[in-house]
Amino acid sequence: MEVTEFAWPNGARCAVAVAVDFDAESIYAGRAPSDRRVEDPPVHLGKLSQGRFAGRFGAGQVRRILKERSVPATWFVCGVDAEKWPGEVQAIVADGFELASHAYTHTAPRLLTVDEERYELERAAIALGKFGVPVLGYRAPALEPSNNTLSLLEEFGFTYVSNLQDDIYPYVHESHDIVELPTAWLTNDTVHFWFDSNSWVKKICSTNEARTVWEEEFLAVREYGGLYVLTLHPKVIGRPSRLKMLSEFLDFLRSHDDVWFATMGEMAEHVREVRTARAV
Amino acid sequence: MEVTEFAWPNGARCAVAVAVDFDAESIYAGRAPSDRRVEDPPVHLGKLSQGRFAGRFGAGQVRRILKERSVPATWFVCGVDAEKWPGEVQAIVADGFELASHAYTHTAPRLLTVDEERYELERAAIALGKFGVPVLGYRAPALEPSNNTLSLLEEFGFTYVSNLQDDIYPYVHESHDIVELPTAWLTNDTVHFWFDSNSWVKKICSTNEARTVWEEEFLAVREYGGLYVLTLHPKVIGRPSRLKMLSEFLDFLRSHDDVWFATMGEMAEHVREVRTARAV
Amino acid sequence: MEVTEFAWPNGARCAVAVAVDFDAESIYAGRAPSDRRVEDPPVHLGKLSQGRFAGRFGAGQVRRILKERSVPATWFVCGVDAEKWPGEVQAIVADGFELASHAYTHTAPRLLTVDEERYELERAAIALGKFGVPVLGYRAPALEPSNNTLSLLEEFGFTYVSNLQDDIYPYVHESHDIVELPTAWLTNDTVHFWFDSNSWVKKICSTNEARTVWEEEFLAVREYGGLYVLTLHPKVIGRPSRLKMLSEFLDFLRSHDDVWFATMGEMAEHVREVRTARAV
Amino acid sequence: MEVTEFAWPNGARCAVAVAVDFDAESIYAGRAPSDRRVEDPPVHLGKLSQGRFAGRFGAGQVRRILKERSVPATWFVCGVDAEKWPGEVQAIVADGFELASHAYTHTAPRLLTVDEERYELERAAIALGKFGVPVLGYRAPALEPSNNTLSLLEEFGFTYVSNLQDDIYPYVHESHDIVELPTAWLTNDTVHFWFDSNSWVKKICSTNEARTVWEEEFLAVREYGGLYVLTLHPKVIGRPSRLKMLSEFLDFLRSHDDVWFATMGEMAEHVREVRTARAV
Repeated sequence: MEVTEFAWPNGARCAVAVAVDFDAESIYAGRAPSDRRVEDPPVHLGKLSQGRFAGRFGAGQVRRILKERSVPATWFVCGVDAEKWPGEVQAIVADGFELASHAYTHTAPRLLTVDEERYELERAAIALGKFGVPVLGYRAPALEPSNNTLSLLEEFGFTYVSNLQDDIYPYVHESHDIVELPTAWLTNDTVHFWFDSNSWVKKICSTNEARTVWEEEFLAVREYGGLYVLTLHPKVIGRPSRLKMLSEFLDFLRSHDDVWFATMGEMAEHVREVRTARAV
Repeated sequence: MEVTEFAWPNGARCAVAVAVDFDAESIYAGRAPSDRRVEDPPVHLGKLSQGRFAGRFGAGQVRRILKERSVPATWFVCGVDAEKWPGEVQAIVADGFELASHAYTHTAPRLLTVDEERYELERAAIALGKFGVPVLGYRAPALEPSNNTLSLLEEFGFTYVSNLQDDIYPYVHESHDIVELPTAWLTNDTVHFWFDSNSWVKKICSTNEARTVWEEEFLAVREYGGLYVLTLHPKVIGRPSRLKMLSEFLDFLRSHDDVWFATMGEMAEHVREVRTARAV
Repeated sequence: MEVTEFAWPNGARCAVAVAVDFDAESIYAGRAPSDRRVEDPPVHLGKLSQGRFAGRFGAGQVRRILKERSVPATWFVCGVDAEKWPGEVQAIVADGFELASHAYTHTAPRLLTVDEERYELERAAIALGKFGVPVLGYRAPALEPSNNTLSLLEEFGFTYVSNLQDDIYPYVHESHDIVELPTAWLTNDTVHFWFDSNSWVKKICSTNEARTVWEEEFLAVREYGGLYVLTLHPKVIGRPSRLKMLSEFLDFLRSHDDVWFATMGEMAEHVREVRTARAV
Repeated sequence: MEVTEFAWPNGARCAVAVAVDFDAESIYAGRAPSDRRVEDPPVHLGKLSQGRFAGRFGAGQVRRILKERSVPATWFVCGVDAEKWPGEVQAIVADGFELASHAYTHTAPRLLTVDEERYELERAAIALGKFGVPVLGYRAPALEPSNNTLSLLEEFGFTYVSNLQDDIYPYVHESHDIVELPTAWLTNDTVHFWFDSNSWVKKICSTNEARTVWEEEFLAVREYGGLYVLTLHPKVIGRPSRLKMLSEFLDFLRSHDDVWFATMGEMAEHVREVRTARAV
């Protein structure tokens, strides 16, 4: 099998996209009809407070750290979180980051009917539309889109998604005119740091354990000329020791001058251009 | 986003609170009507013995280690545990530690009706009241308070809680005159050391794995000027190798002369003073 | 709280007991009426083969390694395993190790009626009785005895158990004339090495991760003058890399000349003598 | 107990077999009637994309890495995967690797009736038969054969399996003329790297954590003169950082000149010859 070297802009060897899933209270209020309020029972105030940490503390810190290093990032925000934390979302936009849709509630589309999923997208569009910037990207809650998702996204004018884990290179979906920017669990903060208080069995890794996995994967994706998607959740990465590690890891990434850092919107646009150029 | 430096007493850079959740047999007897006896079926004598380890061995060792280092601590004790281990609780009080309520049985308030939750608090007040010291603080079993918890706590005269995980600074609840001293899973001993014999899948960490997480979080919280809550469970931390690590970690914490060590009661009082000073 | 130094023989500082839970096919055939055959459905031939590994390979290797180092050990064997692997059990006895009861099937007594539990003990007594040595000790499958266990054990003439996790010193049960030699999950091989193919979520530790936990706990129990119970399962520890670690760890334990190595039967006898001496 | 040194060819000290379980979309579509299509609901497009990663990227990379090092390997392929990725399977055959059956869908035989299991084998035979090479080996999905599996395999002309975990030496089944090449979870990539997005509690190990376990087990199996089965899944090991580790680990294995590397088919043939020689 031959490795298809993907053509990144300006001769860059590989690309890095930072995706921040805002996921504050929404993360614990999903799996329900889309107009459900986050405070509805069954109450899990303790868990809910972990989501609120994103809004009160984590998101602001992640934003500051990214901004100080001029690292572009795409923030996937649920509608309910945007309604609850408008100041935070406004600051994200004001600081020049890309705003993208993470549905209205944090409910996996695979669990919804097509009407429910459309309603999720409509409500999210209204909630995010108030910030006055184009919203072209979408990520499915739980990374589990439905069979209807791509058609609905075309209907709503989205141009790209970051839902699947089937490649290390971006591509355009065969069936729909939507770019896929594939992601992976191992470069996600949550899988290393989250503690599941339902099952009580998850190991909480040290920052070094997570960074080791992130760093070795970056170095290897770079050799393959692929796309490296770092997915952050402020409620998780926002703990002080992890913020310190994040700062250092971003500095490490930035120390490579052959890497293209861009928002996912810019990457999706590039993928289309490359495809068009080839088609010609 | 600007970091709100919290004003700690005497110019301290940050604060450390040690919370000891006594949790002996109670931990395996919760989730039931509040007057249930800990010996009732379904019997799990093996598990129950792990709770009893707290009373027979662990709690006394934790108390000794804290006392030798003059580290203030707040002991959250369930009523049923106080009834079963009165000598231990008496020693906690005699050694000058703070006594606080952890409900009567170790049942998450979110699972209770308001009447059941009030009954839990009444029975706990009777059980802890016998030790002759004021009980001003409360921590919800499983860190899952209900929507009624704060109102009930006001009714019972509590002044603070340590239930939520939504910030690294203490605050006064907007809706009630109760101070929140926020905690976090990663600085809890149980998440690193506990073995769940129901699921049989939890990794038991070495002491170094837990200390690494605790230490890097302390150093980072200190930079942020925040509150570091170390939560200990004698049934878990009471194993000899972990007691040794605890001793060394407390020595490490004590080696920083810009840290305010205090009981949670003292901290709650300080939070109120700061707020009043600002209000003026 | 004062540490009660336990009086070990000949001025030894602490004691080490090696408990080998034979657990071959029995481990996957429990939770059922006690006369159930291990081949009965629901079939899990893949899992069952992991149990058979104990009989085919692991148990013999563990026995050889213990024997080469003259480390006394107590082998807790289920009746069904003794019937299936009589040659292995005969070799255990011939090599001078202690034989003890682990019930007939590997079913937690807490799940059984008193009649079912008695039947388990009867059948185990018949199966183990064929090897011609006294069987004085008992360990409950899953470390979960019932409220009837101690009474039944007296009825059957047992003198000690190693079921609970409530202390680091041995003791005589208050309610029954049975010695408890308390154990702990962290010095058990299975919790570090087992892979649960039902849930598929258990981390398989390296030998160094397990040894670190075992070693630091030994050194600390030694300081406390306590009892260190190392629990081995041939189906788990029997993998070649783990056998190598076990050999090295036993050499490490043996390098301490202030440790009393004995079978659990010898230890139980000592506990009784100490108690009698004190009573006088 | 005496260690039975197994007689490997040409005086080799031990043997290494690399088993690649292709497992693309099939892995998420099993547990169903054998003619179920992989796209049928319940949809888990996110999970399914992780399987597709094997076909789009991982399998080709694993094949390249094995080929560059002249490491023989046996590829166990489900029929549905062969139908979906014929080019990949053709390349496996063209590169001289062994093709073996992994049933039609990835459904554990223990969950099937004898007719369903026969149908699985028939459909797999048709799907794999198109590649024009003999298929003599079989591995049960989930490593859980049924009580009917060996009889059915004889009926279909298979000569060996790699299903069980009951020894470190190969053997011929007593009841059937089928060679068993025993495997083990700890030398499987999935147990170290997989992330289970259903439970969300699995630790994703670094490459070094997995390599440590793999390497120490290899060195110890080599001392025992046993069979070391390394099981790879392209969807898991195919991530760039893991491919790098795999390359280095294979180089390490290859650096031992007393190891017999062969396909499982060659090993099964050798086991039969040794048995015949002994019988004579």
